[in-house]
Amino acid sequence: MTDEATVFVPGHVTGFFTSEPADDPTKAGSRGGGVTLADGVTVTVATSEERSVTLNGGDIEAEAVDRVLDALRATVAVRGETPLPLGAGFGVSGAMALGSALGTNAVADRRLSENELVTIAHGAEVQAGTGLGDVVAQARGGVPLRLEAGGPQTNDMDAIPARGRVEYYVMGEYSTEAVLAGDTETLSRAGEQAVSRVVKEPTMGQFMRASRQFAREADLLTEGVQSVIETVNEAGGTASMAMLGETVFALGSGLTDAGYDATVTSIYPGGATLQESE
Amino acid sequence: MTDEATVFVPGHVTGFFTSEPADDPTKAGSRGGGVTLADGVTVTVATSEERSVTLNGGDIEAEAVDRVLDALRATVAVRGETPLPLGAGFGVSGAMALGSALGTNAVADRRLSENELVTIAHGAEVQAGTGLGDVVAQARGGVPLRLEAGGPQTNDMDAIPARGRVEYYVMGEYSTEAVLAGDTETLSRAGEQAVSRVVKEPTMGQFMRASRQFAREADLLTEGVQSVIETVNEAGGTASMAMLGETVFALGSGLTDAGYDATVTSIYPGGATLQESE
Repeated sequence: MTDEATVFVPGHVTGFFTSEPADDPTKAGSRGGGVTLADGVTVTVATSEERSVTLNGGDIEAEAVDRVLDALRATVAVRGETPLPLGAGFGVSGAMALGSALGTNAVADRRLSENELVTIAHGAEVQAGTGLGDVVAQARGGVPLRLEAGGPQTNDMDAIPARGRVEYYVMGEYSTEAVLAGDTETLSRAGEQAVSRVVKEPTMGQFMRASRQFAREADLLTEGVQSVIETVNEAGGTASMAMLGETVFALGSGLTDAGYDATVTSIYPGGATLQESE
Repeated sequence: MTDEATVFVPGHVTGFFTSEPADDPTKAGSRGGGVTLADGVTVTVATSEERSVTLNGGDIEAEAVDRVLDALRATVAVRGETPLPLGAGFGVSGAMALGSALGTNAVADRRLSENELVTIAHGAEVQAGTGLGDVVAQARGGVPLRLEAGGPQTNDMDAIPARGRVEYYVMGEYSTEAVLAGDTETLSRAGEQAVSRVVKEPTMGQFMRASRQFAREADLLTEGVQSVIETVNEAGGTASMAMLGETVFALGSGLTDAGYDATVTSIYPGGATLQESE
């Protein structure tokens, strides 16, 4: 038993998804595909007299984290540090929930398995309404394809075997809660088609084409995002919209080649893990 | 499409296992638990006029690799580099098979998914008789628990959420083929019990206790291995036997504390991945 545990959770940009509700939050979630990023969230969990949750030094309300700590019956201090913006489609809330689960298990000696901890974080995120598929994707790493919804006990995942540079350009926030609370039928139909396309040909080229088609058909593109994507395409690159943020992501140097002051990261090969204590 | 692709595959030390035969090699395999290691195999696959397979610069016969290349209909040169000894229980043959599958998919543009490539490598390893569970464990990383046998389409995996230093001490080889070709009933019964114990309490302490009990009950301990394990225990450490090699592995500094000239590595957090091309 240690006093403090640190977990790295990769960021996760979703390219396309469906909404799959269920009464049991560990079975609810989404199908879809995304890219996990080397830019992620470093979550430190420490034993504490009272519960606190901070992100980059400031207190935050994080319902998903609270639900994780309730499930693990733990009073701990959770500190997240990240270069990623909140509410811009990078799965920061999912990362905080997953990092809290893995870190609390270590400091409070809860003796749960990886799948059990991912299930708790996934269910917490679904119940909080802040995400449907980030947690299970961040637990796997790489370029995860979510073929069936839910936590690790019920879902079915595969991945595109790819690595490489990724760029992103953030223009603003986008409320995941508002989209998920609205009519998701059109979105889910478009998401299903995108999953089918990428399962048939699991390559990054196909992933980006399916993502762009999803963004158009699900009617989620903002004018600003659309204009950036078009500019990248005209410059010979390939880009799409991060679901859900007013954020454009591109493979390789697509955004910088098109003249945008984008942030450079890369596909993260592994899933969320405890950092080694020295 | 590139001319060369490099894949890192972690080593894998099995603590306990069952043998689960099946007519379909992608459904056959084993249940069990092991530790993936930062000491692994770097597999480079290059386009070539004729097929060749080398390990640390020397030609080797590798039936599992040949079966992978047959399945992918590829003529490539496969080069493995590793600090790990062959035949000593580190999953080097599984790593060569898995690295060949991921690397060949990249250089020959085969457009298969991660699960499809892992399935091909797992089936090839089972058919070659050189391993039952290394490939799926090496694809996941960490401390994988194999709860149901087979490749990714049929198996069921979980993991112990742990990191840390691991030491190993190699005394000699041990034929996996000979053990797997013999009577595996006692071994599988002991393996089932070990899996049950660790599922109930997924911690490294329980993993090591279950591994030692398995080694005794499955009657696989050599005198030399038994003596080293006892010496580590007397020095306050925790060690067990790598299945299948005349190899002892220990958590933390168990072997060096007991005076052995052991090799130091650590639990590897992620699964096998393509290396980034620069």
